[in-house]
Amino acid sequence: MQAYRTLEQRFGRLAALEEAAQVLHWDLSTLMPSGGGEARTEQLTALSLTAHEILTDGAMADLFAAAEGEAGGLAAWEAANLREMRRLWRHETALGADLVEARTKATKRCELLWREARPKSDFAGLLPAFREVVSLVRQEADAAAAALGCSPYDALLDKFEPGNTAAEVDRLFAPLSDFLPGFLPQVLERQAQAPAPIMPEGPFPLAEQEALCRRLMQDIGFDFDHGRLDVSIHPFCGGVPDDVRITTRYDESDFAKSLMAVLHETGHALYERGLPPDRRRQPVGQARGMAVHESQSLLIEMQVCRSPEFHSFLAPLARDAFGGPAEAWDVENLLRCNNRVRQDYIRVDADEVTYPAHIILRYRLEKAMITGDLDPADLPGAWNDGMQELLGIRPPDDCRGCLQDIHWYDGLWGYFPAYTLGAMMAAQFFGAARRALPGVLDDVSKGDFSDLLGWLRRHVHGRGSLLSSEDLLEEATGEALNPEYFLKHLKARYLGAA
Amino acid sequence: MQAYRTLEQRFGRLAALEEAAQVLHWDLSTLMPSGGGEARTEQLTALSLTAHEILTDGAMADLFAAAEGEAGGLAAWEAANLREMRRLWRHETALGADLVEARTKATKRCELLWREARPKSDFAGLLPAFREVVSLVRQEADAAAAALGCSPYDALLDKFEPGNTAAEVDRLFAPLSDFLPGFLPQVLERQAQAPAPIMPEGPFPLAEQEALCRRLMQDIGFDFDHGRLDVSIHPFCGGVPDDVRITTRYDESDFAKSLMAVLHETGHALYERGLPPDRRRQPVGQARGMAVHESQSLLIEMQVCRSPEFHSFLAPLARDAFGGPAEAWDVENLLRCNNRVRQDYIRVDADEVTYPAHIILRYRLEKAMITGDLDPADLPGAWNDGMQELLGIRPPDDCRGCLQDIHWYDGLWGYFPAYTLGAMMAAQFFGAARRALPGVLDDVSKGDFSDLLGWLRRHVHGRGSLLSSEDLLEEATGEALNPEYFLKHLKARYLGAA
Repeated sequence: MQAYRTLEQRFGRLAALEEAAQVLHWDLSTLMPSGGGEARTEQLTALSLTAHEILTDGAMADLFAAAEGEAGGLAAWEAANLREMRRLWRHETALGADLVEARTKATKRCELLWREARPKSDFAGLLPAFREVVSLVRQEADAAAAALGCSPYDALLDKFEPGNTAAEVDRLFAPLSDFLPGFLPQVLERQAQAPAPIMPEGPFPLAEQEALCRRLMQDIGFDFDHGRLDVSIHPFCGGVPDDVRITTRYDESDFAKSLMAVLHETGHALYERGLPPDRRRQPVGQARGMAVHESQSLLIEMQVCRSPEFHSFLAPLARDAFGGPAEAWDVENLLRCNNRVRQDYIRVDADEVTYPAHIILRYRLEKAMITGDLDPADLPGAWNDGMQELLGIRPPDDCRGCLQDIHWYDGLWGYFPAYTLGAMMAAQFFGAARRALPGVLDDVSKGDFSDLLGWLRRHVHGRGSLLSSEDLLEEATGEALNPEYFLKHLKARYLGAA
Repeated sequence: MQAYRTLEQRFGRLAALEEAAQVLHWDLSTLMPSGGGEARTEQLTALSLTAHEILTDGAMADLFAAAEGEAGGLAAWEAANLREMRRLWRHETALGADLVEARTKATKRCELLWREARPKSDFAGLLPAFREVVSLVRQEADAAAAALGCSPYDALLDKFEPGNTAAEVDRLFAPLSDFLPGFLPQVLERQAQAPAPIMPEGPFPLAEQEALCRRLMQDIGFDFDHGRLDVSIHPFCGGVPDDVRITTRYDESDFAKSLMAVLHETGHALYERGLPPDRRRQPVGQARGMAVHESQSLLIEMQVCRSPEFHSFLAPLARDAFGGPAEAWDVENLLRCNNRVRQDYIRVDADEVTYPAHIILRYRLEKAMITGDLDPADLPGAWNDGMQELLGIRPPDDCRGCLQDIHWYDGLWGYFPAYTLGAMMAAQFFGAARRALPGVLDDVSKGDFSDLLGWLRRHVHGRGSLLSSEDLLEEATGEALNPEYFLKHLKARYLGAA
């Protein structure tokens, strides 16, 4: 077991350094003074270079070979750990230092130009830099594909959701893209016939908003001895499993936006906090992937906290916190406010029904750019055509079209599908939880989330990366990922279908 | 220049990782939730092991040898940088891994036992663990002495104040220990004859205290774009030069305590912030040593902010912030409150006059324990005799005697002299600044600190570790460290001598 133990030690050091970087990132996004940026970049660069050197050390290949020979003596957790170590090592060693450097420079440059181009809707001006990024990401995908033995786009997917493939995404997204264009008009029609929502009136004082957020976080199971809630420009979940730090941003005129963001991040935080404590700082002890991660935030936000049951718990608390006319705090009204569906150009503002359309579009386009079927110059037209097809609206400019998201310009490719895979997993996990715990939504209406959290701990959080996503789903819910649960959820919530 | 450049690169990485650790330490002391401790320890341990490996890498000896050959082509800053690199390397490589581990374990154990022993005044119970620490620190000192070519105690001193020696400390402390026993009764006599100070009456709301602290920090030159003020149990100055973070702790019944602590830490912060920007993350760009560092905090706190001129600026601001009877805010009265001298057992509560006695005592005792002249078992008696001799009081128990400070029990030896050397340097630096800027105290009375800060930037902060402490003093003030400036300052402030 000598080789395996040595690997454990090396990956333990690696993870501890990555945890350090996590805390520095959190600090950077929440309270670092503006002048601290350059030094912080140096600190984070030193950490990431050190991590890179640990992973690409010349002795690693021999260690992995020797550890293979020890595989018979490994426990299941250890074997899975070895598998995950090898995956990380393969990704890291697939790219030569020159390619990594060229890619880092090109994305940094493109991302800076994107910040200027977006408000001006100037895609043409950004195109040369963007073309360079696409070219380098394609080279990266080719190199990773060769190392992993898969297609280039699959190699990109694997980084965020291990084992994921375009064939699988196609299988899962097809029913959704068939379903949505017919479903959306029905939802809008039904919504138009319902009473108009009465928005609760602000201003909503920040201190009361924060107090309500903390109260609900705690009720759901967030442990403030092992975490924090702070403010940042974009809400996120950072920190480390024993010290999970979520952030939000408060708007005095809209309490629901920050509250729902907090509940979403609380789902992420519960996952991190619930990862197996005796596998800390080992690859197998870490979250399974971005889709599973998103399933946990969406399970809490969408499945639980936008439900009628949660709203019957929330309404009186919100009324007590903020006051104002009683009709706005009526449970049915509040539900209508918080589950409003509308066709819009912008992904981050999208509701649960239209969000998948934004993702399917991006998935199609990024895959086509990686295979070479779509030239980057043709992105704006293809984007707008796709929006027309999927959502029935056409962006008036690229700012509200293909320039809206930072991901591609910053080198983040293969990430988008995780959002909607996560939504599907959330529906399937929650379906299984409801079958196992028939009273779970009753409990939610009373502010009791303990059984639900226990189920998630046992079936998802506590398993870390022991299983593949597929096996995790299978063991927790009895079947592989099946988009029907998500479609059924949408029909129930937005058309009142049984 | 190949070898020198490689060393620069390695030490740059090292310093960036040490900066990361600084930020993590700050976080740990200010806002980390209680449950984050274990993970934080893992992160800091990984950083310190990585730093240790960088410094003790097998190639370093050859790199230093090759860089020696390149010395002719180095600029003065680079030559000084090489000298500092070698000093750090020698300290780090002097100790074998076994000794480092034994020392770490023994001090950790002793420090934990000390926390229990102190409130119970149980020195006897702590003695076995303490004896082990002393034995290992002596071994450490012997090993470092062999590597540095000096005496064991000098090797300990060198770690905190490079180049410092017991012979030099003896030379500097002798006039002080001759002076203090006669001086103190005169001060107390004069104080007894002056009007009794009228303490401003609280409660002093925390928000107003913080606002006043921030206002004064900013006036003195603290740049909040490159730093923060927060709360922690013990005030400290942390962070990194481009992001200096000081902390304090507020007491609703005493505004002066936290204010003076903030002004003290501001002195430290200005030093860090003023270190040469183009030498960031190189040994030569770092603070010269703990005595020089303490000189900068004491210059701001003791020389400047406890002066009549600063108090004439402070009094109306404090009165506006806190209100209450006018007589308490009289400048002369406030000065009497803030410069009160009294014989006390506790170092951290000591005033400017009695503080050096506490240090001289600790210096004598720790040196004697390192040379073997004092057996650890005899520490309590030696401590109490020394207090009697130096301050004329005898601690009623070891809690208020030799158990009061964490330093020795936690393995920090050779550090104490820096406090009083810093006080001496502060007086000498400030004397030189006043000669160069005759209007500087007038400026202070108007809240204008810019000329003073400019002088400190040029003569101290901006020089980093280019010069030895001795040469730094010499160049800035025209002579080597001379205790007469400090004695003169004490006589002027506490006896009104010209």
